[in-house]
Amino acid sequence: MSDILDTATSWLSEEDLSYVRDRVPIVYVEAVPVRINHRGEVDRVGLLLTFRPDGSVSRAIVSGRVLYGETIRDALWRHLTKDLGPDLDPQLPVSPSPFTVAEYLPDPDKTGYHDPRQHAVALAYVVPIAGEATPSEDALDFTWLTVAEATSQAAADEMSAGHGRLVRLALAHAGMLR
Amino acid sequence: MSDILDTATSWLSEEDLSYVRDRVPIVYVEAVPVRINHRGEVDRVGLLLTFRPDGSVSRAIVSGRVLYGETIRDALWRHLTKDLGPDLDPQLPVSPSPFTVAEYLPDPDKTGYHDPRQHAVALAYVVPIAGEATPSEDALDFTWLTVAEATSQAAADEMSAGHGRLVRLALAHAGMLR
Amino acid sequence: MSDILDTATSWLSEEDLSYVRDRVPIVYVEAVPVRINHRGEVDRVGLLLTFRPDGSVSRAIVSGRVLYGETIRDALWRHLTKDLGPDLDPQLPVSPSPFTVAEYLPDPDKTGYHDPRQHAVALAYVVPIAGEATPSEDALDFTWLTVAEATSQAAADEMSAGHGRLVRLALAHAGMLR
Amino acid sequence: MSDILDTATSWLSEEDLSYVRDRVPIVYVEAVPVRINHRGEVDRVGLLLTFRPDGSVSRAIVSGRVLYGETIRDALWRHLTKDLGPDLDPQLPVSPSPFTVAEYLPDPDKTGYHDPRQHAVALAYVVPIAGEATPSEDALDFTWLTVAEATSQAAADEMSAGHGRLVRLALAHAGMLR
Repeated sequence: MSDILDTATSWLSEEDLSYVRDRVPIVYVEAVPVRINHRGEVDRVGLLLTFRPDGSVSRAIVSGRVLYGETIRDALWRHLTKDLGPDLDPQLPVSPSPFTVAEYLPDPDKTGYHDPRQHAVALAYVVPIAGEATPSEDALDFTWLTVAEATSQAAADEMSAGHGRLVRLALAHAGMLR
Repeated sequence: MSDILDTATSWLSEEDLSYVRDRVPIVYVEAVPVRINHRGEVDRVGLLLTFRPDGSVSRAIVSGRVLYGETIRDALWRHLTKDLGPDLDPQLPVSPSPFTVAEYLPDPDKTGYHDPRQHAVALAYVVPIAGEATPSEDALDFTWLTVAEATSQAAADEMSAGHGRLVRLALAHAGMLR
Repeated sequence: MSDILDTATSWLSEEDLSYVRDRVPIVYVEAVPVRINHRGEVDRVGLLLTFRPDGSVSRAIVSGRVLYGETIRDALWRHLTKDLGPDLDPQLPVSPSPFTVAEYLPDPDKTGYHDPRQHAVALAYVVPIAGEATPSEDALDFTWLTVAEATSQAAADEMSAGHGRLVRLALAHAGMLR
Repeated sequence: MSDILDTATSWLSEEDLSYVRDRVPIVYVEAVPVRINHRGEVDRVGLLLTFRPDGSVSRAIVSGRVLYGETIRDALWRHLTKDLGPDLDPQLPVSPSPFTVAEYLPDPDKTGYHDPRQHAVALAYVVPIAGEATPSEDALDFTWLTVAEATSQAAADEMSAGHGRLVRLALAHAGMLR
């Protein structure tokens, strides 16, 4: 019950969000959805096809803000099932330690991760998917790529600033980057 | 087919095993079986009740040797399903990096991990279990303990040298150790 | 130069800080200072003796807010050298991945990490210290404890909510928790 | 004293080593030497120029066998200072958990890591170097490369099977792979 209230009050008006974005780093979670075999080896990487804030189309991993009072795990679950549907059955990580921390800044040159709207500190996780992905209406499509496809230059070119790099770091963490 | 041959030829006679144990460290895998909730949080820790080499009874995690030609992931799968049955559905880790490396030595004081028979280097993983555990005939029992029970002094006293510590390190890795 | 400007503008008035604290989680970094031997094994754990917000005295690890435009690494460096002096020579971690993420909430029961003032998401790192620690005027003292002392119940009782647990998780990560 | 005896008796004759190599996986440690700045960011990657077993020349990271009775940390220290000299001052990792586990097999296609002589299980670590590297007589040279150089296709082509991949995984772990 208190969970529901916490979450309800933590949605911010555009004005409030703009105010805090000018003053503090914003906490994000990011998930690289993968299909694994029975040995735990990554077989496929799932990427959304979405509109960027500027209206162009790009491939992307799952990404979203952590709300006031919401835990990292609840935020991961919420964004994954919101973007990829209620039958997703994501296997959230046992350890709270992310495989990397991506620091998005308005300055595109400082970290290599870029967000013109804000300073975001994103905790990134690899999330095996056991169920079925049905992308939400916000997304144009969702595709399972092979490891070779997902780490290709072509895929990197289709991703917004930093997501291609996160996919490579995720696959390196999984020992699958060649 | 070649996998089967590799594994078949890698079983050693007692004489051969004794010979190599006197000369090189032996590679082991160890798995702490856990039940997790939909958020990935550890809910229960599974422990075997087994006979030790000296005939006494103790609680233990899953542990076993990696054979010549066998991968870490195949060894983990083999030992988990041999000890806990074919319906276990273990969710092997996405990353090959173990949460810790336990170095068992004949000298009980050097690392705190002790094995009078050999020098073993064990790669330890937390493995969520999605299916049903049916312990093999080698085990007396298999029990799911709460996190508080598994990290209690009572449980530590029932485990063979080092396994109680591995359970605590596993739960610390999962962020669940209080 | 732009770094200095970024940091300068990111200090918030009490009013502004209070406003954002009611609306979003605040990003923190936390460092467990340690002394290591030439093998990398933890020999000592460093703890500050400080005043808590409520005026009582407690032991604590290094902890502080990440400013708008400031990287995690710059924030770690700033808080470590502010609290422990310019001759500290802290060896910041090669990997940006924290050993755990501590989620401090006004509700003391939700995660076990408690902060009555705010929802803070803290990235926690183990930081070997190569130089000399000279605690700032804000601290009453700084002491190097043995691993056994730092993980004792007595030390845990002297730490504010969650820091004793972070010390144990840090030492588990280092393989030093018995 | 007992350490010295342990190590002394653990050197194997060519015949003994050949015997065990046919029967069990051999434990290795591997170190990617790096230069870091005060923030912990990787600035340079150090690579040896050595003769391969087949007589050809290649770039390589530090790699070697763990002896019977020797700990991982002692083996890392021994191989680093043997290959790169007594003034190296390597900063061994606080955590025993390697950033990846490389499984070298006689079959070049099974894991992507290849060793025609044996099945080796290598625990790989990133090791910042604080001192000076003076390569041993076994090496032809030792060079500090930039991150861009070390992850280039040219560098990968100069490394023996698997080392180029290990360098990329090491830099991904450090958050430095673009």
